[in-house]
Amino acid sequence: MINRNSCFLIVGLGLIGGSYARALHKKGYRVLAITKYQSSIDYAKNEGFIDEGSTIVDENLIKQADVIIFCLYPSLEVEWLRNYQHLFKPGTLLSDVAGVKGGIIDEIQSFLRADVEMIACHPMAGKEVYGVENSDDAIFRDANFIVVPTEKNTREAIDDAYHLGEILGFNKVSQLTIKQHDEIIGFVSQLTHVIAVSLMTCNEDENLQNYTGDSFRDLTRIARINENMWSELFIDNKGPLIEQIDAFMNQMSCLRSMIENEDVDELKKVFIKSTKRRALFDKRK
Amino acid sequence: MINRNSCFLIVGLGLIGGSYARALHKKGYRVLAITKYQSSIDYAKNEGFIDEGSTIVDENLIKQADVIIFCLYPSLEVEWLRNYQHLFKPGTLLSDVAGVKGGIIDEIQSFLRADVEMIACHPMAGKEVYGVENSDDAIFRDANFIVVPTEKNTREAIDDAYHLGEILGFNKVSQLTIKQHDEIIGFVSQLTHVIAVSLMTCNEDENLQNYTGDSFRDLTRIARINENMWSELFIDNKGPLIEQIDAFMNQMSCLRSMIENEDVDELKKVFIKSTKRRALFDKRK
Repeated sequence: MINRNSCFLIVGLGLIGGSYARALHKKGYRVLAITKYQSSIDYAKNEGFIDEGSTIVDENLIKQADVIIFCLYPSLEVEWLRNYQHLFKPGTLLSDVAGVKGGIIDEIQSFLRADVEMIACHPMAGKEVYGVENSDDAIFRDANFIVVPTEKNTREAIDDAYHLGEILGFNKVSQLTIKQHDEIIGFVSQLTHVIAVSLMTCNEDENLQNYTGDSFRDLTRIARINENMWSELFIDNKGPLIEQIDAFMNQMSCLRSMIENEDVDELKKVFIKSTKRRALFDKRK
Repeated sequence: MINRNSCFLIVGLGLIGGSYARALHKKGYRVLAITKYQSSIDYAKNEGFIDEGSTIVDENLIKQADVIIFCLYPSLEVEWLRNYQHLFKPGTLLSDVAGVKGGIIDEIQSFLRADVEMIACHPMAGKEVYGVENSDDAIFRDANFIVVPTEKNTREAIDDAYHLGEILGFNKVSQLTIKQHDEIIGFVSQLTHVIAVSLMTCNEDENLQNYTGDSFRDLTRIARINENMWSELFIDNKGPLIEQIDAFMNQMSCLRSMIENEDVDELKKVFIKSTKRRALFDKRK
């Protein structure tokens, strides 16, 4: 159970791993890190938000950890656990930040040791840049934290995940099944990235930046996209994502027909609905 | 020619008209307004950014004006000019803020008195709320101002329009033909609104706000939309807008196929292109 003396190990000290480390350190927890580059460890130690770090899978660090958070690409997360789970001390709580859960969490839970537990989480926060140098726990402040338990999880681990979301400073913690999570993420996160990239690449005009307003800038902010991570996320969640793309394109085709047929009444109805629905997202603050 | 003593008349004191009035007043110009509601005039006078105002088409105000700016819906702009152009003093410079120019400006210039001149402009700034109470000239600061001359315009009026963009405090003033303008606006402004509305209305989940990140919020900010103005703008610019919708949906279908076929290499290529193109929009600041 997470308590005041819990020691956290972050595996993968990038944008999200670094932001976790900063938030946990601020709350007074001991924070360790295992990551690929020595420069990331040096940076985090200099900034003072990790206590120890290593670029190798250091048994000494792993044995200290009460909670291990995997901040890796989904495929690496599965591989890492398969290779090194024998090093965990009994009772270690595991969590992750992967943007897709189907095919990842069920796979991990199928081979995981019985004396440790993996509770999947998705911190709905990010930036269009990456690396620990860009980490910032302020990104959690207005954001949502989703706990994604399976039938293999205990009540205690689910409570711990809620507690973790609060420790990290998230605005709201919710719970979804893997299926619900991947459908909703396919919509709110992945579909939005497909839209932004399509918009940014469907017009070859070289001087667009002289003619744009805030609308275009808002809709394309996330068109700056980490090609390795997102191609993996899209393909891992292919089924739900394609369903969402189709629903979106279908709605857009309806609007296209209304414009073509100059059906002002129907257009206005859709705009009123859209305005009403969007207002719910402002109330929250 | 616009000079230090020019008197400006704003016709239509809403979000944009009010923001023009505020900017012009700050620079020391005399500012008059003709608008629909007495409450708008009262508000602007109380705030001190107009000198005189009327809810009727007041000849006394019109005769004082050296420059008249029409901040009306496009259809109303044409009607107003047709009905009241006989009241202008000779040499009056006219300008507007309409989001579509084809079918509007050429129409106006076809019946306009020979001793006054209309130079079309498009201030690429706005908010998802409206009314003079929400006016704010700070919205012009990082924004683009587009001058849209025709072959009927004089060099002097075009220069005046550039000058106006600078007086209002725009970041950049550019020039486009009506055809170029309507194509580009179909893309950067109208297509983005069609996308935002489609995204906001294509999924019926009632609890989305608990699971969204910044991506979804960014992409739907402009889904709060004035149904009267935007249905008119979309239909006035139907041809170019539908071309842009088709180009976008075509690109999105390509991405959909890449995801379905798990074509990681092609996906990465598009993401790299998208990231590179989007970076141009950040450099500007």
